[in-house]
Amino acid sequence: MHWPGKVLVREVGLRDGLQNEKTVLPTEKKIALIRELTGAGISAIEATSFVHPRAVPQLADAEAVLAGIGAPGPGVTISALVGNVKGMQRALEMLHTPLREIVVVVSASEAHNRANLNRSVAESLAELVEICRLAEGRLRVRGAVATAFGCPYQGAIGIYAVARVIEGMVAAGIREITLADTAGMGNPRQVYDLAGEVGERYSGVDWALHLHDTRGLGLANALAGVLAGVTILECSLGGLGGCPFIPGATGNVATGDLVHMLHKMGVETGMDLRRVLQCTASLERLLGRNLPARIR
Amino acid sequence: MHWPGKVLVREVGLRDGLQNEKTVLPTEKKIALIRELTGAGISAIEATSFVHPRAVPQLADAEAVLAGIGAPGPGVTISALVGNVKGMQRALEMLHTPLREIVVVVSASEAHNRANLNRSVAESLAELVEICRLAEGRLRVRGAVATAFGCPYQGAIGIYAVARVIEGMVAAGIREITLADTAGMGNPRQVYDLAGEVGERYSGVDWALHLHDTRGLGLANALAGVLAGVTILECSLGGLGGCPFIPGATGNVATGDLVHMLHKMGVETGMDLRRVLQCTASLERLLGRNLPARIR
Repeated sequence: MHWPGKVLVREVGLRDGLQNEKTVLPTEKKIALIRELTGAGISAIEATSFVHPRAVPQLADAEAVLAGIGAPGPGVTISALVGNVKGMQRALEMLHTPLREIVVVVSASEAHNRANLNRSVAESLAELVEICRLAEGRLRVRGAVATAFGCPYQGAIGIYAVARVIEGMVAAGIREITLADTAGMGNPRQVYDLAGEVGERYSGVDWALHLHDTRGLGLANALAGVLAGVTILECSLGGLGGCPFIPGATGNVATGDLVHMLHKMGVETGMDLRRVLQCTASLERLLGRNLPARIR
Repeated sequence: MHWPGKVLVREVGLRDGLQNEKTVLPTEKKIALIRELTGAGISAIEATSFVHPRAVPQLADAEAVLAGIGAPGPGVTISALVGNVKGMQRALEMLHTPLREIVVVVSASEAHNRANLNRSVAESLAELVEICRLAEGRLRVRGAVATAFGCPYQGAIGIYAVARVIEGMVAAGIREITLADTAGMGNPRQVYDLAGEVGERYSGVDWALHLHDTRGLGLANALAGVLAGVTILECSLGGLGGCPFIPGATGNVATGDLVHMLHKMGVETGMDLRRVLQCTASLERLLGRNLPARIR
C-alpha cells in the first residue's frame, strides 16, 4: 500500500464555491480571506475566474481581487480559471499581480461541455491550444477534466472520453491535470482505477483531484486518489458550493475535513488545521450561515 | 489492491442508535423496522441489548422485541448485546426466538471500560469466559473491542491494549471480532494498519468494523478496512446515534450511505438500496426528525 508523505492542497472555494452563492462577497473580504488562507500555510489558491461577468457576477471583480492580494509569500501559487481566449487576454493583463497560473476546464462529457462552455469538446480543445500559445513564457497552464467520473446529463463517462481530453491537454503542453468529479458521482474504486490508469499512461503529468461531496464520498474518494498516486487535492473552505437552497447539498470536500484526515494519516500538507478552521469560521460569518464541514 | 467482491453489512441502529435517543420507540415499531430491514435484504441485525433497563431504558423491551420478530427468513442472523452474566442469563431464555448470536463488548481502554461497564478490562475478560461457557452449544458469541482506535478519556490506544482484549476473546473461543471506533477518532491509515495487522496475526477470525462518523471519516475508514481484508461492516440506519442535541453529531456510518458506496464499487451486500432508504425514512418518521445520512 502506497501512503504518500505529502500532498499539495489547493483551495478552490473562492472560485468554485463563491460562483454558486447568491451572496456576492465584497472584493476586500475575498482578499482578506486569501490572506488568511496563506497565513494558514496553504500553498495553492484558485482565487477567481476570468469568465463573462454576466455569467458569473460573483466573480466579476477578478482583476481587483488579484491586484489586491499583494505578495502572497514564498511558495504560494495563485491561479485563476480562464473560460476562453477572451478570458486569457484578461489574465495576461494581470502579470503585475501574483497571478502565475491559469486553469482551463474541458469536460469529458459532450453534453456538459456544451452546457458549461457552449462549445463542443473538439472546439474547446482547439481553443485550449490557442490559450496555451498565448500563455507561453508568461503563465503556467493547468488543465481540468470536468465530469471525469460521471455526468448529470450523459450519465456514465467512459475512459476514452476522459483520455481524449487528456491527450488534447498533454499535446498542448499541459503537465498538470485535475480529474474533476463535478457532480459527485464517482466512487473510490473508480477514482483509484482512473487515477492509477492515467498516472501510468501519461508519465510526466502531475495529477490532481477535484471531488464534489454530493453523495458523501468526497473523503473516501480523496483517500482512494492518494493511494493511486495523486499528489494534489482540491477542496473548498467549509465545503462551500452546491446549492444553498438544498439542505445538506455540498460543494467540494471541505478543506478542514480534508486537512484533518491527511494530518491524522501522517500526510503533510504544510497547513495549520486550527487556522484553516478559523478561515472557515470567517467565511461562515461573511455568508451568514453554517457550511457543511464536519471538523470545527 | 484487494477489492472485495462481497461484504456482510450488519445493522446496529436498533441497539447502538436507539440507546442514545431521548424518544423510546414502541416495541411494535421496532419489530416493524426489523421486518422492513430483512425485507431490504439485510442479513445481520443487532436487534437489542441485554443490559440493565435502568441503564438503557430505551432497550428495556429486549425480550418482547425478540419474541415479536417471528421467523426472519433464511440467512438472517439476529444478535443482541450482552452486558454481563446476568444479561447472558436473560439471553438464554430467548432460545425460542430468532436470537442466535450475542455480542460482548470489552474496551481496549481501561478508563472507557470502567465508565461503560464499571469493571476493569481484566474483570471483563474474566466475565467473558463465563459468558462463553454459558453460551456453548446454544448461542454464537461475537466480541467487540471498544475504543480500538482511540478513547475520549485516555486518548491514543496502543496496539497492545487492543491485542490484549483480542487475545482474551480468541482464548475464550470467539471467532468473530469487531474493532469499534467508539468515539470516531480513527483515521483510514490507522484502520488499514490495525485491521491488516490483526488479520495477519489471528488467522481464523472474521473481522468487523464499527465506525462512528463523528469526524466525517466513517466511509473513508470503511474503505480502508475492506482494503485491509475486513469482511463485515456495521452501520446504523440514517446514521442514527450520537447526541440528538448536538447539530451534525452522528452515530455510526449511515447504512444507506455505506451500501451506496459498496454497490457503486461493485461490492455485493445482498441489499436493495432503495428499500434501505425506505427503512431510513420510516425511522425518521418515527423519531420526527431528519437523520444525518447523505443518500436519500
